[in-house]
Amino acid sequence: MPFDALFVPPALCEAVSDRAWLRALLEAESALAAAEARAGVIAQDAADAVAEACGAAFDVDELVDEGRKVGNVVEPLVRRLREEAPQAHWGATSQDILDTAAALISRNALALIQVELEQVAHACAQLAEQYRSTVMAARTLLQQAVPTTFGVKAASWLVGVVHARERLGAAGLPAQLGGAGGTLAALGDRGVDVLRAYAEELELPEPVLPWHTRRLPLAELGAALSVAAGFLGKIAVDIELLAQTEVGEVREAADGGSSTMPHKRNPVGSTLTRACAIRSQAASGVLLTTLAQEQERAAGAWHAEWGALSDALALTGGAAAWLGQTLAGLEVDAERMRANIGAETLSEAARFGIDAQRPEDYLGSAGAFVDRALAFYRGR
Amino acid sequence: MPFDALFVPPALCEAVSDRAWLRALLEAESALAAAEARAGVIAQDAADAVAEACGAAFDVDELVDEGRKVGNVVEPLVRRLREEAPQAHWGATSQDILDTAAALISRNALALIQVELEQVAHACAQLAEQYRSTVMAARTLLQQAVPTTFGVKAASWLVGVVHARERLGAAGLPAQLGGAGGTLAALGDRGVDVLRAYAEELELPEPVLPWHTRRLPLAELGAALSVAAGFLGKIAVDIELLAQTEVGEVREAADGGSSTMPHKRNPVGSTLTRACAIRSQAASGVLLTTLAQEQERAAGAWHAEWGALSDALALTGGAAAWLGQTLAGLEVDAERMRANIGAETLSEAARFGIDAQRPEDYLGSAGAFVDRALAFYRGR
Amino acid sequence: MPFDALFVPPALCEAVSDRAWLRALLEAESALAAAEARAGVIAQDAADAVAEACGAAFDVDELVDEGRKVGNVVEPLVRRLREEAPQAHWGATSQDILDTAAALISRNALALIQVELEQVAHACAQLAEQYRSTVMAARTLLQQAVPTTFGVKAASWLVGVVHARERLGAAGLPAQLGGAGGTLAALGDRGVDVLRAYAEELELPEPVLPWHTRRLPLAELGAALSVAAGFLGKIAVDIELLAQTEVGEVREAADGGSSTMPHKRNPVGSTLTRACAIRSQAASGVLLTTLAQEQERAAGAWHAEWGALSDALALTGGAAAWLGQTLAGLEVDAERMRANIGAETLSEAARFGIDAQRPEDYLGSAGAFVDRALAFYRGR
Amino acid sequence: MPFDALFVPPALCEAVSDRAWLRALLEAESALAAAEARAGVIAQDAADAVAEACGAAFDVDELVDEGRKVGNVVEPLVRRLREEAPQAHWGATSQDILDTAAALISRNALALIQVELEQVAHACAQLAEQYRSTVMAARTLLQQAVPTTFGVKAASWLVGVVHARERLGAAGLPAQLGGAGGTLAALGDRGVDVLRAYAEELELPEPVLPWHTRRLPLAELGAALSVAAGFLGKIAVDIELLAQTEVGEVREAADGGSSTMPHKRNPVGSTLTRACAIRSQAASGVLLTTLAQEQERAAGAWHAEWGALSDALALTGGAAAWLGQTLAGLEVDAERMRANIGAETLSEAARFGIDAQRPEDYLGSAGAFVDRALAFYRGR
Repeated sequence: MPFDALFVPPALCEAVSDRAWLRALLEAESALAAAEARAGVIAQDAADAVAEACGAAFDVDELVDEGRKVGNVVEPLVRRLREEAPQAHWGATSQDILDTAAALISRNALALIQVELEQVAHACAQLAEQYRSTVMAARTLLQQAVPTTFGVKAASWLVGVVHARERLGAAGLPAQLGGAGGTLAALGDRGVDVLRAYAEELELPEPVLPWHTRRLPLAELGAALSVAAGFLGKIAVDIELLAQTEVGEVREAADGGSSTMPHKRNPVGSTLTRACAIRSQAASGVLLTTLAQEQERAAGAWHAEWGALSDALALTGGAAAWLGQTLAGLEVDAERMRANIGAETLSEAARFGIDAQRPEDYLGSAGAFVDRALAFYRGR
Repeated sequence: MPFDALFVPPALCEAVSDRAWLRALLEAESALAAAEARAGVIAQDAADAVAEACGAAFDVDELVDEGRKVGNVVEPLVRRLREEAPQAHWGATSQDILDTAAALISRNALALIQVELEQVAHACAQLAEQYRSTVMAARTLLQQAVPTTFGVKAASWLVGVVHARERLGAAGLPAQLGGAGGTLAALGDRGVDVLRAYAEELELPEPVLPWHTRRLPLAELGAALSVAAGFLGKIAVDIELLAQTEVGEVREAADGGSSTMPHKRNPVGSTLTRACAIRSQAASGVLLTTLAQEQERAAGAWHAEWGALSDALALTGGAAAWLGQTLAGLEVDAERMRANIGAETLSEAARFGIDAQRPEDYLGSAGAFVDRALAFYRGR
Repeated sequence: MPFDALFVPPALCEAVSDRAWLRALLEAESALAAAEARAGVIAQDAADAVAEACGAAFDVDELVDEGRKVGNVVEPLVRRLREEAPQAHWGATSQDILDTAAALISRNALALIQVELEQVAHACAQLAEQYRSTVMAARTLLQQAVPTTFGVKAASWLVGVVHARERLGAAGLPAQLGGAGGTLAALGDRGVDVLRAYAEELELPEPVLPWHTRRLPLAELGAALSVAAGFLGKIAVDIELLAQTEVGEVREAADGGSSTMPHKRNPVGSTLTRACAIRSQAASGVLLTTLAQEQERAAGAWHAEWGALSDALALTGGAAAWLGQTLAGLEVDAERMRANIGAETLSEAARFGIDAQRPEDYLGSAGAFVDRALAFYRGR
Repeated sequence: MPFDALFVPPALCEAVSDRAWLRALLEAESALAAAEARAGVIAQDAADAVAEACGAAFDVDELVDEGRKVGNVVEPLVRRLREEAPQAHWGATSQDILDTAAALISRNALALIQVELEQVAHACAQLAEQYRSTVMAARTLLQQAVPTTFGVKAASWLVGVVHARERLGAAGLPAQLGGAGGTLAALGDRGVDVLRAYAEELELPEPVLPWHTRRLPLAELGAALSVAAGFLGKIAVDIELLAQTEVGEVREAADGGSSTMPHKRNPVGSTLTRACAIRSQAASGVLLTTLAQEQERAAGAWHAEWGALSDALALTGGAAAWLGQTLAGLEVDAERMRANIGAETLSEAARFGIDAQRPEDYLGSAGAFVDRALAFYRGR
């Protein structure tokens, strides 16, 4: 897709690439053989052979080309592995390996996203602390309402980001192993043992039973990505609004210059954050709307997940990366914030019997809320 | 919207109606006054007056009519309350009351939804237990693959429903109280105390700070509703596929007759479950895509939530109600299940060295999976 | 759904109500009988009896209640009709009548929407003409860029609204008649004749063949509604941004007062326009994502359409009505527009060798574009 | 994104690639210079220099890397062009070039999609003709209803595909040229002339006025892609259902083998068609929900379009390519169709006084509908 590198950091692009998926598929096959050896289903030698076969180099394009016949790349991959290690993929179905790869891809990408989100949270915390008492106008329906502080605004961003991070942290996928029909029939009475060992090998959660068409973990991961991306978009909108020429209360540090209008300092980071967020939410939406998967393996909805999951991970990470960089370099104009506050923002005070001559006199719990937010952040 | 009563049980229709919202608004106003009295912000007499004023009858149509001028119904409602109780709505903003009402509406509707989901789970558990050893064909990409049991299928439904229920159970909204700009300015230094007392009065979670534009709780509620509805849709799809004329392994008990084709037994319950699920997911999607709310109060995205939340609650409940009824009356034709299994479903067994003459010989961990699912259900 | 009347004009609420759907169902049944009489399939007397039976009063709640057994309200309605007119619904299936009702509902609602859109277009044209030479800052990425005129802005709104109207004007649904399986089997060799006569009776387009699961007309109607609503939302966003306290270039005439902040003039109309647009797009999205309907009648996707279509119609109309009223009363502050223009918006001119001392000197084709837009509008 | 080549034909992948976008950007820049020379804004020599500069090789990765500073790749590209041709990009803004590139990309990709859709239509027409009298059961709510023919089913597919093609054929984007603020200020009084010449050079429609934030053409293109993809998904669902083991009325020719279950003939083509359709609809949905773009250039919504448009084009093409191949090789089992028809499908006939002993006796207008569909197809 065009200009992906403009939106998504290289490490995240790589983490959801064909190559990364191939590595994850091989990791799953290797873990399966190891688990089966532990459970006595195949010999250790056979498992070692699988591990070695998985270490070879494979041509993704070739696999995809051959995969067109069966609708996925696992079948041609397994064919190659079995040339070296006949007991590769023992008792498994393609979806076992692809779903487990999705779990591994997600874990790796989520780790990168978490780093980016921590940058965002850290920047918000710094802003909340530094501008704890910096008054500015609160704006409701885009009209000045009453005074607030930039600290409270950043504190609310902070709490949202911490919230989003925690949900993402809890949103990983379990290992997948069910065999052709979800019964692990080919493993005889050892299925449950192999499933446990397999999950342990991969350090992935063990499911209660195979989830070939019980896609709640994936849908919830999608939802968590959507919530995170959507809230990053909210912060970006706030920055764009504060950075408006007529408001001028913040400025992005990054260049953002226009070729023909050198005076302009475009909010480029916020803009790309929003673009990532919008596309991320569309991608993760697929993971929700495809829950209705048929019987024991879906004929289409499952296949739509791979790209949607990859996009949702990459673009949420892109949103976080752009926003983290934007917040870290944000120039805050406290004087302009103070100067912009209209006198009418104090009009409410008298109604409640509060003698507020200056914005600073009508801040209520602003400071307390900043402290609560910082404590919330630090307590996690 | 047309024929809502066809899809949604009366109690749920009522739980998200104009009347229910009005009651919730009044409950929030009353709790606010009580909390402010406890915190010493207003006198107890004043709070009592508010409580009494909130007990009056209001004409929703009139409120809506007047609400057109300001974009919501709280302002005309407060005007009326203040005629009787001048300190009503002290220090609050309309959104405080509307968001708190959304929390109350959600709590009530979720309680109804949970009852319906428990019916679904209970029915799944019964099916899993009763048909633990009933063999049938597993179908992948809509082709017969290997044998499985109807017990495993129902067990997987069960685990998904339990999963969905738990997420919904954790998805409530906190109380909302921030005042005009999110600082509780009008409450002076008592804001935090009032916030705590208000949440206690309502038995709602207390937020770290006001969430006027930090809509993650709502987005997550939407996501949980979407996941639940989506998975209910999956069960319905399975039933529809099993009920096909050419498959005939299950039948819905309900009439489902066709006026001109008396032989038809349409899967009406599954059909309406799916319809509810589709619409529910569209409605809850709004709660995700509107996360990017501007500054301290959004100019449109917030106002879009009321209907979307109500629809998502009602339709998820509708899906659960229809499916619960469908599962409770499901006629399972175990003989047909057995007879439908093609001989070729055993073709895989030999490859794995298993001597399977009958479907019963090639079930792997099917029974164990049923047991795990039932234990999972009962352990919750 | 809560507070619908806040968002949608009464006439549109009524146009998609249960009552309106019932009337449309009866109109379809009556037209069917008339067409069948014309084609000699039933006697004219029989058709007259149907027409008379259709004139009776029916209790929607009762129909819905009985409809729960079969998944739609047509079956109980037909049962009642046949008590008086045994040849009612001759050869038709419930979907024939419901889809035709959807066509009638759409035609009626679209007529109301068109009136609202014409108000919007008219107001845009007036603004474009009146403010043809009123300079203001063009804003890109929310930064002042170069001068433009309010006339150009309104002209672009105008062109978009005209465009949206035309697409809606072309987006009606055809009549539906296919019988139980889409072959009109019960009409013997008269099916095509009846289909033609039926469409004529109803003054609806005649389809090439029944479209029970070929839902492109509905999807395209949904798309046209989504495009219209989305663009109305764009105009509303512009107004909100121009109405910001710090910009102050336009003001909504409507009250929009805040109960505790009398100074605020909230952009209520724009806000409710956006809320309608967001919800409308979610509803119409259902009509796109449910295209994949199974075989000769869908088991769920079809049933999801009724509410989605009704919502999409009502809310698009709501967006248009709110925006039309907003634009009609819009207060434009030409002086503020002029005063807001930063000197740096002329910085580009020198680069292109244009001697621009004032914004008025650097407007390029602004006036020509206004003229083109007005001619475009008037030429339609 | 993983395994794109599995879903999308190479030519379409290439048509929306970074390289294709770069070529389109250069084509736009070159056409702009040519148009400006024709209009006397720049000298012919200068335009020639631009054309030559546009012929050079550029490193997309470098451009993207530098583009991160400004949020798009046009600025670094223009910087390079101006080293060779100082009057490159005269009076234009980055969005002019990017939007025009989107128009060119769309035109090229749509041409490829049309070829694929014609394959689909052609195959449907052949099936409709060949199986005009091949009886089978019509299935409503997945239950056998009355007899129909495979010809009618294919005819309905055909009409839908023709319909979708026509809408796509009418859905191209116009040229874009507005300059920094949509007034073509830098072109003085020659703006309209240049706009016309520019559109002519590119053989793209000329817009009434610049459409920087009036995104209806893009939204309508997205809608047309969504409708096409959605309907292709419908055909794929039908094939999957007919190909079920228990139905067995059609079979995909392609391998579709399972590694461990040699008996399985998976409906791979239909499955991948559906996967493409689902993802395509999610991508095109972005083009609808981003209509609300701010003022004269959007800060995020615009940037989200590039990837969404590219995905929607590629995946709609992927759906069409997979389905065309599937239909071309579809094996139809007319005997099985006949044998599957249950006797009860004739139960309706007696009610309507038709003496139908065999399915062939109760087909109504089936043949006529096939003829109408073929005439419709051939008449276009």
